Amino acid sequence: MSSGETVKIGLLGMGTVGGGVAQIIEDSGELLAGKTGARLLLERVLVRDPARGRTVELPPQTYTTDPDTVIKDPSIDVVVELMGGIEPARTLISTALQEGKHVVTANKDLMAQHGRELLQLARRCGRNIFYEASVGGGIPLIRPLKRCLVANRIERMIGIINGTTNYILTRMFLDDMDFQEALDKARELGFAEADPSSDLEGRDAAYKLTILAGIAFNCSLNPDDFPTRGITGVTRADIHYARELGYTIKLLAVAEEKPEGLALGVYPALVPLAHPLATVQDEFNAIFIKGDLIGEAMFYGRGAGALPTASAVVADIIEVARSLQHGGAEGAPPNSNRKPTLLPPAALTSRFYVRLLARDRPGVFGALAAAFGEEEVSLDMIIQKRRQNGIAEIVLVTHDVNEERFNRSLQRVARLPAIEPDPSVFRVLA
Amino acid sequence: MSSGETVKIGLLGMGTVGGGVAQIIEDSGELLAGKTGARLLLERVLVRDPARGRTVELPPQTYTTDPDTVIKDPSIDVVVELMGGIEPARTLISTALQEGKHVVTANKDLMAQHGRELLQLARRCGRNIFYEASVGGGIPLIRPLKRCLVANRIERMIGIINGTTNYILTRMFLDDMDFQEALDKARELGFAEADPSSDLEGRDAAYKLTILAGIAFNCSLNPDDFPTRGITGVTRADIHYARELGYTIKLLAVAEEKPEGLALGVYPALVPLAHPLATVQDEFNAIFIKGDLIGEAMFYGRGAGALPTASAVVADIIEVARSLQHGGAEGAPPNSNRKPTLLPPAALTSRFYVRLLARDRPGVFGALAAAFGEEEVSLDMIIQKRRQNGIAEIVLVTHDVNEERFNRSLQRVARLPAIEPDPSVFRVLA
Repeated sequence: MSSGETVKIGLLGMGTVGGGVAQIIEDSGELLAGKTGARLLLERVLVRDPARGRTVELPPQTYTTDPDTVIKDPSIDVVVELMGGIEPARTLISTALQEGKHVVTANKDLMAQHGRELLQLARRCGRNIFYEASVGGGIPLIRPLKRCLVANRIERMIGIINGTTNYILTRMFLDDMDFQEALDKARELGFAEADPSSDLEGRDAAYKLTILAGIAFNCSLNPDDFPTRGITGVTRADIHYARELGYTIKLLAVAEEKPEGLALGVYPALVPLAHPLATVQDEFNAIFIKGDLIGEAMFYGRGAGALPTASAVVADIIEVARSLQHGGAEGAPPNSNRKPTLLPPAALTSRFYVRLLARDRPGVFGALAAAFGEEEVSLDMIIQKRRQNGIAEIVLVTHDVNEERFNRSLQRVARLPAIEPDPSVFRVLA
Repeated sequence: MSSGETVKIGLLGMGTVGGGVAQIIEDSGELLAGKTGARLLLERVLVRDPARGRTVELPPQTYTTDPDTVIKDPSIDVVVELMGGIEPARTLISTALQEGKHVVTANKDLMAQHGRELLQLARRCGRNIFYEASVGGGIPLIRPLKRCLVANRIERMIGIINGTTNYILTRMFLDDMDFQEALDKARELGFAEADPSSDLEGRDAAYKLTILAGIAFNCSLNPDDFPTRGITGVTRADIHYARELGYTIKLLAVAEEKPEGLALGVYPALVPLAHPLATVQDEFNAIFIKGDLIGEAMFYGRGAGALPTASAVVADIIEVARSLQHGGAEGAPPNSNRKPTLLPPAALTSRFYVRLLARDRPGVFGALAAAFGEEEVSLDMIIQKRRQNGIAEIVLVTHDVNEERFNRSLQRVARLPAIEPDPSVFRVLA
């Protein structure tokens, strides 16, 4: 790219990430021009209140409250959407593409729910839409998946892609906190939002998995396509037993291609302490990938935060700058519209952890073992501890078993008179 | 990219990686065409013996022993160099670029020693040269550094980028092997070559660091620009003490940008067990990066092997296919010719581990402490153990200290009559 080419940017939204983008362009514009030949210029910025003071100083006429003056301005090359939420972001992006703009967005909710539609529209318009910042903050994930691992069949992708829950589970594991204490600590440090339910219940991870698995398996997915379970059921007792058995507990987003179809899910699971994912601590994120050619690989870093996310946004803007010079548009890959065969969880095989309370009377363990045995669920590890008041706590880890069969064994267990209802059950990562 | 476009490939060399590339194109050609719209065709393959049997069947007229029929064939779009070594690879690549071919290479030695010259030539010819496979096997490193982290100032890059040495150090740590046992085991498993000296002495890592740091810091480097030390001096005793102090020992390739210049080096160092790099085991590789925006990130995977490497080569060929459609060439970034200020090790600050033997007589430890104290080297951790025959083993870890000052303190120690010569000295990663 020849030096000095100017790329005019229209920014929709000037919150913390937008401010970070403006700051990077201000501080590192020269560095970026030197590295890439592209000179980035913030031409128009859509804000709610143009008069509000901001850390980055832009000429006052840059600010506007009218989105049309951004997305319909013929001088603007790329529209960067950082408003979040579905509307008006969806409509503005669609119009911008139709107006011939390239688009960069960090909008996870939008790309998870309407990504396919926007990618197809971009393709029809001969324009690019880049969304690296929508998943994994500053960790390069989408581009490495699309570009560097293009020759691989991805067999399995396991992500720790929610910083809030990983922080909480890490503190429960390392500091022996209970769930509420760890959540309070996460709030104190700004790792949990005022309403953290989307994080805690796994929806945030499910959205990210939708985007990543769509790329890895080149297909069209929806967050409702697969089961999602959060971490609110993970207790201090489960963390203790997991440690005793050589595991930690992580909220995993898993996608696996099998001959019969694609298995997807978000759930807390026991992860062996020697597994690379077990070492991903606090607010860090990681994606562990198994490809047929590269074998196992992992990408690790900060999955959120204004500057990491802004760094990914700026990298996407630079990609647009390249495509402007080269005239190429990527859009969606030709067959990303493919609806994959999704496997129901019942069809899958896993190891399971079960923690249950039993009234401590003779023969209770025998009855329990029989309940599993009758469904041919074999047990790998067993811990039984006496608790007060004649209650015993029993922890079991099964060998690999079909989930449907395992659930039938749990129903048998539930019918045993000495067993308390509602055992804790988690998958165990092999 | 529209479907069905054909990219004609001329392959120089058909060893294990070349065979892997041919296999991928054979097996996954349809998948790749679906993902990218590019249809890859192996048009000509330079081999020594066309009659030799191969696992991938190509039409016999594909094979040639005359390089000119590959690099000067006007129908060929991209020349893929997998011969290794400096010549004739360097001349063939130069001619191919001048003939208007794009080039993909996995040649680490060539890119480390003549990368700048070839990148500049590619730039002048308006052609691309991609070399992702030259470092880190299948782990995406070069493209993420160049593209995804483009907005970051890389502050520090620490790599475990030699699989042979990492395998040896891992086995010494986990299985309590001594160096020779672990080397034998590595040989047995194919992780060490017949002559492993380039790996063991750190040269292989130094070449890779030259390539990676050149990209990360956008400058021109040479493997002779920095000190390189291998792992032959790491003993079982050092691994023991490292473990006792909460560390493991890894061969690190380090590049750090400081206000005064760039500090580079390859050396074995103590790595805290909680550091993400400590968990990189056996033949795996990883690059740990600290950027001003993304903070800490790590890329992890298999750094060598025919299929991982071939996977990176094919990804590079697909990049060429994109650039063929888009008409863009990357060449070297405009200012990659920059010669950075290189800091001599003496100017750097580090913590140091020292293991020495002392004749066990009264006052020896006091004299030792004084020798360090006189140079204002302060000690963080001390272990002293009695060995047989009146010899004591003393292990010290210093606080951060300027290396020049530290070396002066070692000279003082060497003059102490009770201290045996040639202590073990390693840097300690903070």
